[in-house]
This record gives sequence, C-alpha cells and structure tokens, in this order.
Amino acid sequence: MSPGIYNKSYLMTAGPTPLPPAVSQVMAEPILYHRAPAFIEIYERALAGLKRVFQTGNDVLAFSSSGSGALESAVANLTTAGEPAVVASAGKFGERWAELCTAYGVDMTHLEFDWGTKIDPETVDEALSSLDRPARALFVTHSETSTGVVHDVRTLAEIARKHDTIIVVDAVSGMGAVTLPQDEWGVDVVVSGSQKALMSPPGLGFASVNERALEAAAANATPRYYFDWVKTSKGQRKSPADSPFTPAVTVWRSLDIALGMIEEEGLENVFARHAALARAARAGIAAIGLERFGPDDDGANVVTGAHLPEEIDGARLPKVMRDDLGITVAGGQGHLKGKIVRIAHCGYYGAFDIIVAMSGLEMALKRLGYECEAGAAAGAAEQVLIDAGSPEPVGKT
Amino acid sequence: MSPGIYNKSYLMTAGPTPLPPAVSQVMAEPILYHRAPAFIEIYERALAGLKRVFQTGNDVLAFSSSGSGALESAVANLTTAGEPAVVASAGKFGERWAELCTAYGVDMTHLEFDWGTKIDPETVDEALSSLDRPARALFVTHSETSTGVVHDVRTLAEIARKHDTIIVVDAVSGMGAVTLPQDEWGVDVVVSGSQKALMSPPGLGFASVNERALEAAAANATPRYYFDWVKTSKGQRKSPADSPFTPAVTVWRSLDIALGMIEEEGLENVFARHAALARAARAGIAAIGLERFGPDDDGANVVTGAHLPEEIDGARLPKVMRDDLGITVAGGQGHLKGKIVRIAHCGYYGAFDIIVAMSGLEMALKRLGYECEAGAAAGAAEQVLIDAGSPEPVGKT
Repeated sequence: MSPGIYNKSYLMTAGPTPLPPAVSQVMAEPILYHRAPAFIEIYERALAGLKRVFQTGNDVLAFSSSGSGALESAVANLTTAGEPAVVASAGKFGERWAELCTAYGVDMTHLEFDWGTKIDPETVDEALSSLDRPARALFVTHSETSTGVVHDVRTLAEIARKHDTIIVVDAVSGMGAVTLPQDEWGVDVVVSGSQKALMSPPGLGFASVNERALEAAAANATPRYYFDWVKTSKGQRKSPADSPFTPAVTVWRSLDIALGMIEEEGLENVFARHAALARAARAGIAAIGLERFGPDDDGANVVTGAHLPEEIDGARLPKVMRDDLGITVAGGQGHLKGKIVRIAHCGYYGAFDIIVAMSGLEMALKRLGYECEAGAAAGAAEQVLIDAGSPEPVGKT
Repeated sequence: MSPGIYNKSYLMTAGPTPLPPAVSQVMAEPILYHRAPAFIEIYERALAGLKRVFQTGNDVLAFSSSGSGALESAVANLTTAGEPAVVASAGKFGERWAELCTAYGVDMTHLEFDWGTKIDPETVDEALSSLDRPARALFVTHSETSTGVVHDVRTLAEIARKHDTIIVVDAVSGMGAVTLPQDEWGVDVVVSGSQKALMSPPGLGFASVNERALEAAAANATPRYYFDWVKTSKGQRKSPADSPFTPAVTVWRSLDIALGMIEEEGLENVFARHAALARAARAGIAAIGLERFGPDDDGANVVTGAHLPEEIDGARLPKVMRDDLGITVAGGQGHLKGKIVRIAHCGYYGAFDIIVAMSGLEMALKRLGYECEAGAAAGAAEQVLIDAGSPEPVGKT
C-alpha cells in the first residue's frame, strides 16, 4: 500500500518514547570501550545526573536491563521466601510486583484496587498493622502506565515509615515526568528505566536505594547475582566508577545527552511542560465528548486515559490510528482492552504532539463511526496550549 | 529561555525541506571513496532514478552545487554575450534568470509579470516573435517558490518550439512535487536541486539536457569549466559512470535512499500526496479568513501562500512561529515581506504536518492580535485530509 498523506510515523506511547534527535544520533558514534576514560566520564556524569532527576543523595544503582529487571532487583534484594511483604496495586504494572513476589515465594499480602482508581492509603495502613511480623517491604507504583493514575507516594511513604517498613516505588514511567522527591518524601527505594520520561532507548534499569534499604539487602540471604545491589553499589562507589558487568554503552551515551537536556530545561520546567500537555490532552478529549478514565487528578500528567464511546469497536482504534494514520498510541490493557485509549505525554513530547494526537484521534473515531467535529479536540487542546505556553500576546501593529 | 511546551523544531519551508530519517541516517555511515565500486553503484542507481523523476530519457547532468549552480550551468552553456535570450519571470526565483543573463552580458528581453500571477504565454510568444534574431534560449520557472505559483510549462514549451528556441525551466522546487513530464512536453532543459521535493540535503544541482540543447552547448564558446555540460555528460556516459569532479558522496547516498522512497511510493502517488496536502492547507487558511495569495490554481501544490491580515504586523509572524512555537515557515520575500506567509508541502510532508502548520499559524496570528477560533484552520484541513486519505469509514461495531 502506498503511504499517501499518512507517510510519517508518530510514536505516541508511554515507552519506549520518542527520542530527541541528539539522543538518537549519539548512538551512531563509534562504540566506546567501557573502561576507557572517554566512557567513564560519560558514565560518571550520567550517574550524577540521575541523582538530580531522582532528587536524591543516594547512589542510583544501574543495571543493563529493562525497568522490570530493576523491579526484580528490589524483590530479590529485599524479600525472603516465606517472609511477609505487601503489594498495593491498581493496574497492570502494579500487578507485576505481585508476580515477582509470587516468583520469589514471598508471604505476600496483595491489596488489589480497581484499575483506574488510586491506592487507598488507609487500606495499606490497616494491612501493615494486621501482619503478625513486620513486612519486609511495601511495593507500590508511582505512575501506573496502564491507567494513567499517579498514586499518592508521599502519603504511602509516611505510612510505611510509621510501620518501619521499607517502601519500594515503581517510578518507571513517572520519573522525570511528575515530581517524586525521594529524599524529601522519605522513599527508601525508587525504581525506574531509561526508556520513558528519561528520553533514552530501553536498556537501562535503575534503583535508587537509601542506606537503610542497602543494609537490609546486605543482610538478606535471598540468592541473586546480576541484580545484587551491594555488588553494584560497590562498583559505582569506586573511583573511577565501575559497573560490575559490561554496561550498555550506547544507551549510556544516549542517557547522558538526555540528562543534559533535562538539566538545561530545568526539572521544574520539565514537570510544568508535562502538566501543560496533560491539561491540553484532557481538554481535547472532553471537547469531543470522551470521558476521562481515572480520577479527576491534575497531577496525573504521564498518560491521559479516555473512555472510548460504547458505539464503536474500541479495540480497533489503536489499529486504525497506527495502520491508517501512522500514529502509534496505546489502547487499554487487560480487561480495559477496547474500552480506553491512552494518550502519552511522557518524555520528549511537546505542544504539537498533542495537536497531532488529538487530530489523529478524531480522524480514527470518525472512521469508526463516532460523530465529532473535525478539529474540535485539536482546537480545545490548542487553546490550553496557547494559555499555557505563550506569555503576553505581542499585540497588533 | 526554557523551551517549555514548544520544545521541538519543525522545518516547514520549501527548501531545505525535512529529510526522511533513513535519508539523514545514511550520512552517518563511513564516507565512501568516489571511485570505489560501492559508491559507483549508488551513483549510477541515483542517476537512473533521477531520470524517472524527471520523466526523461535524457542524462540528468549532476553538479556538486546548489540549484543556482545548475541554473548558471544553463546560462553558461546556452547563451553568448551580446546574443539575445528571453527571461519570463514573476517572482524572486524567476528574477535569478535575469541576474544570470545580465552577469553573462546576454542581450536579454526580460518579461516581468506581477509576483503572484502566472507568466502569460501570449506575451512570451509576442516577445519571441519581435526579436530580429532567434533567441538562444527562453528561461522560465516551473514552481515559483517565492509566490507559490506554478507556471504553465507545457504551453510555454509549445511556444518555444514554435520559435525554434531552447526552453530552460527552473524546476528546483517543483521537481518531484508536481508533474513535469519533460520529454512528453518537449522541454529542452530542466534544472533542479537535491534539497526540495527530492527530500535530500542541499549540495547537488541537476540539469536534464536533451540532445538539441547539448549540441547547442557544444557549439557555444562562452567560457565555463566546472559547469560545462559536455564534460559532465561525457563523464556520466562512461562505464562506469564518472563525475568530472569529486562528487558530494554523502549527498548522493542520501539522494539514493530518497529516490528509492519516491520509487516505492510511486511518482503519481507522490503528486497526489502533494495535491491533497495543498488542498488541506488552502482549506485551513480559508477557514480563518485568510485569502490565498496567487491565482486559484489547484495544480499549485508546492507552497501555499496566504495574504496576512492587514491589522497585524505580518513581518513578525514567521519570527513568532519560529522563536515562540518552534515552527520555521517562510514569510514573503522582496516586496511581499510582511504581506504573505508561505506554507510549504514540498517533499517529505504528510497529513499531520499540515495540521501542525495550521495550528501554529492560528497560535501565531492570535498572539499578533488577529482573532480566529483555536482549531478552525486545523479542523478544516483535517476534514480535507479525512476526505483525501481515508478509504471507506470502517463503520461502527
């Protein structure tokens, strides 16, 4: 088939996210030996940059892995078979904690909240109180990519602290999109990956681990090797810093460029940009009569979920957008398949990405038989972007 | 300044035009020696591909130069100081023919038509009739990038043939965007460049020269060296083909990829795509009350010019779009500065580029004090794109 006017591809998912050109291009440079000074300089600079984005004084331990590898590192280093731990989930990624705990034979209490709702802190508090032995860890999610919900990590960390339980937060999609000041909020472990708001290719997983959690890991006999925090921490604390296994050097080079861009933009400005894009997406879907999926939370700025109209075959929407229009967006996962669409604005996204997403969403909905005015969603998003992005109008002559 | 939500750059001019990623990326490959078989294969394949896009059996002579270098090659090879030639112009690029003829001391008849109008064939006919000696050449423009007008090359070629005059057409921005079947229309010389609808970086100029024009060049004593057609033709006709001077090898590699993409899309589909994008742009500007610049010609599909509202400071519009929104568009040139804006859809452009251009145009106009509804231009363009690009709606469940 000729591509016709839909000849370009737009990656509009929450990960892998689109890469800034400078981030892509650096991978074309000659590969570096990972013990050469040229690489060590990049590696050390990126490790320092990660600490600023994680808003922490901890070492951010890095693994050549996906984000799920870093999740596993937390379970392997903190839990013990037969010992209690609590998982609070409200979506597909939250459930991954439960799958990991099951795999490790943990005596797990799994608090399952409805997809699209927020984890209820009181329920977590009660669950931790009702255990006969202290939980080794509380596993929760920051931005739940499957629903767009951003959970109240600050309150959950307070509850964990009250019970002297280590809290581990999956911030794979949220890190660098919405704030998570680890040290200020007293979060013991924050896990993330390179391929979302950090605007880099997939291939690096991170675990920012505080001293308390590192000590717990050192005292924990659960078998692990590749994902061992103590070994990784020792390597990274060497001078020069050293990765215990060959690091994914091209991904590090990309990450170094991306972190430099975040630094230059300023973390607060990065969060403000995500907030403005999310407001625009919310205004856009409302303008064509779609209801937002999830609570009305103006801090949920990573992914905007929208209920699809009942009269269309919702499962076909992402396929129409991708195959007919060139726009890759995510539909619903699990039991939400065909029920929702998810508009990402996580990482290297800007004003006109939302315009394209809204225009493409309208086109696809119309093709599937939903009636809406061409340009209504794009126009509503545009008005929000105008209000957010422009200072004073410069005025007439 | 923080880039905020306008963090991405959109190149939306009629040259250099945006490059497809595969075209950009091939330049990162190791440089090739221009006499190595690996390069000769690319060079010969691209020369063959050029003939298909030029719709000609002629050799398309190639120079490491801008398009203007290829224009100069035509004047240097065909004209003689003191001998007559006719230039018919209606814009900045048409005037370049006159500047070149002046530089070469040609006895020039310069027919100047108002910018934004079409060259009148009858006036050209009369001018050629009124000369006391036959004109060495008639120089005209195909797509006049400064105004968006596409001239009637077919009729102008008929007139030149009637007077036994060689016609030379500047198709720098039009080649590969709107049809110009050189052999079918009997055009002696067609000049173009790599950086417009051929979706490649600047650096290569082309002159497709028929036998009659090549013979005229061989008989012409006007001094030239680098741009000599006979020398270039001899080199390209060798086996293996040979460029008389070191070719711009990275640009050739890009051009080879780009020509392959045109081949794959199909030339007729490429023209249909440009036509659909132009219709969308015309509908968009009309929806916010802007008048089209130039005649109402549905074949002018390279650049859409729009009169700017009188009440705004039009010269600031391209600056606001670029500096505030990240979109590089062209304003008016020469005496049209501040009076018009030019929306390009020439080369690697697709549906959502027009959506972005329309949304950005609205935003910029509003910032400058013009009242229009957010999303009106984008919506009108979207409706045209829906009608143009989608087959049947797939329908409800």
